[in-house]
Amino acid sequence: MKLFTPGPVYLRREVLEAMSRQVISHRTQEFRSLLRKVVDDLKYVVQTTEGEVAVLTGSGTLAVESMVYSLIEPGDRVLLLSFGFFGERLRESLIRRGAVVDVVEAPLGDIVEISDVENALERRHYKALFTVFTETSTGVTLRELKRIAELAKKYGLLVCVDAISAIGGEEFYMDRWCIDAVAGCSQKCIGAPPGVSFVALSPEAIKVAEKVRGKPIYMDLTRYIKYVHERSETPYTPAINVLYGLETALQILKEEGLEGRWRRFRYLTDLLYERVKTIEFTRFPRFEVRSSTVAVLKVPSDLSAKSIVKTLREEFGIVVARGLGILENSVIRVGVMGYIAEEDIEYLVSGLKACIDILRS
Amino acid sequence: MKLFTPGPVYLRREVLEAMSRQVISHRTQEFRSLLRKVVDDLKYVVQTTEGEVAVLTGSGTLAVESMVYSLIEPGDRVLLLSFGFFGERLRESLIRRGAVVDVVEAPLGDIVEISDVENALERRHYKALFTVFTETSTGVTLRELKRIAELAKKYGLLVCVDAISAIGGEEFYMDRWCIDAVAGCSQKCIGAPPGVSFVALSPEAIKVAEKVRGKPIYMDLTRYIKYVHERSETPYTPAINVLYGLETALQILKEEGLEGRWRRFRYLTDLLYERVKTIEFTRFPRFEVRSSTVAVLKVPSDLSAKSIVKTLREEFGIVVARGLGILENSVIRVGVMGYIAEEDIEYLVSGLKACIDILRS
Repeated sequence: MKLFTPGPVYLRREVLEAMSRQVISHRTQEFRSLLRKVVDDLKYVVQTTEGEVAVLTGSGTLAVESMVYSLIEPGDRVLLLSFGFFGERLRESLIRRGAVVDVVEAPLGDIVEISDVENALERRHYKALFTVFTETSTGVTLRELKRIAELAKKYGLLVCVDAISAIGGEEFYMDRWCIDAVAGCSQKCIGAPPGVSFVALSPEAIKVAEKVRGKPIYMDLTRYIKYVHERSETPYTPAINVLYGLETALQILKEEGLEGRWRRFRYLTDLLYERVKTIEFTRFPRFEVRSSTVAVLKVPSDLSAKSIVKTLREEFGIVVARGLGILENSVIRVGVMGYIAEEDIEYLVSGLKACIDILRS
Repeated sequence: MKLFTPGPVYLRREVLEAMSRQVISHRTQEFRSLLRKVVDDLKYVVQTTEGEVAVLTGSGTLAVESMVYSLIEPGDRVLLLSFGFFGERLRESLIRRGAVVDVVEAPLGDIVEISDVENALERRHYKALFTVFTETSTGVTLRELKRIAELAKKYGLLVCVDAISAIGGEEFYMDRWCIDAVAGCSQKCIGAPPGVSFVALSPEAIKVAEKVRGKPIYMDLTRYIKYVHERSETPYTPAINVLYGLETALQILKEEGLEGRWRRFRYLTDLLYERVKTIEFTRFPRFEVRSSTVAVLKVPSDLSAKSIVKTLREEFGIVVARGLGILENSVIRVGVMGYIAEEDIEYLVSGLKACIDILRS
């Protein structure tokens, strides 16, 4: 099986092998060195020198929700930018937390208009702006994030970003773009096993989080940051073997270089969009805001995404993802985040072509 | 290094190797078979046929707190039995959730009196009783859990148990003992890598959880149970490689047999308590309520736990844990939960003896 899913991704052999090292106690010097290294590398990946990183054991959803519960209190006003499935999940978290949420939306396949954001900011005072950066349900990336963040900072908001499907794979500069909180995870563009996620907080966000009450212990980012700062440990037992894998994956990422990886993913996604033109699959997102890490393809109108996903897997050993929500049966989603080469894209395209023939015969 | 910590534990080679298998997508048949198997085996480990199991990615703290957030709403009255560090952590979670908490306490090294529990139940109506089963900070296990649960059920309470350090290692029968919710984890008595934890809920607890509002998405046990029930999947990306390790560890546990493992841990802990008698380390918990999975030893009064832990590690490659909270420097904690044999206990005892000589010289 070859995974082209938008996370978890196919791993390199050396990452897999790193995981079979014996478990160490998370209260030893050996563990502290490991965590220190991972934290420093994650700072590089999100491009921060001023922020601190909380390393969590859990999925990306945990990281995003910890950001919500650590920075927002019931009754706080939040401006949410939502343009897909994961924007809606963020809305659900915010509402469960008791936030009062105003939403700027966009049609699926596109991003929000800056003027709509500015109008909302002028009308009312918000504590924070929340947004997804790369929305894998539609294959778009919020290319205006830098401008939106600058605008939000002008109005005094915290800028909080779900960058789960972007970190390590899309151009992103936490400090330079004035981002206060960003959530990422191990199993996507970083190329590590699933099980670890993280949130980087700016000094301002840390100050806010320290005052927020009623955070669940497991989602209390201030506690993780205090532990990492004071003793290079996690407050609770971490997924140690996943951290071994993450350490190795980060090493590989550093050797490639962040910009190099950003370029490689963009190249592969554009190659895929280009190559499918001849076989009736079309790009779903608007060209200018297409993501580099996940391609979303409209399937030919006489076929269902479900049957294509099934045939690809059974006949060619290729795993891609179906659409999410209302796009479930009309698009397929292809991640290039993993250990994927140019020839894998060619193999996928020939598989897609053969699928059409099989399903129509 | 040899780990004698009360989790995470030293793993068998085949468990470590299982983790280096390639990642699969959590939306495939292959994953569904894996999760189904893990869930069925966990039902065996907690001894339930009526309950359902939510498999989480995270530490034991996540499992315990998910139990709190899924069953309790702000303002609910809860009776907590607390007799150590983890009882206090449970209190903190309950208070952060907004519960009104009454506490029955016990001196460190002992468990609560049943008559105190009964008096509390008579005075007031509670929604639920929460307790730790094996308190690793003091080395005691709540041997009266069955009687306490029966009593609480008579008064109509949900019985919710943090059995993180017990499940797989101490006699425990969820259905037979009338337990409504029990939290466990991978990295202790089951002998799997850290990163996965779980909560088993009774049919009654599931009904209650469905009505509870304001649960964080990541801690919403009803969602995990719905997913596992309807499609044998997890709602969020799980730590797939840790599940590979857990699957293998559960297979090993089944081959040994649950009762066999309970007996083996009891034997090893009793052997340790017996053997240290000659070298000035004494049992901390009261004999009748000593845990089978973790031994807590008072260190000779002229020495500090800190120096013993350090010397053991540096001179003999043995890792044990210091005390927690106010016991930090007066006890050491030794877990027998891992891949530990009788001769390892002998090696530990000779190490402890040598430590005394080194530190006094």
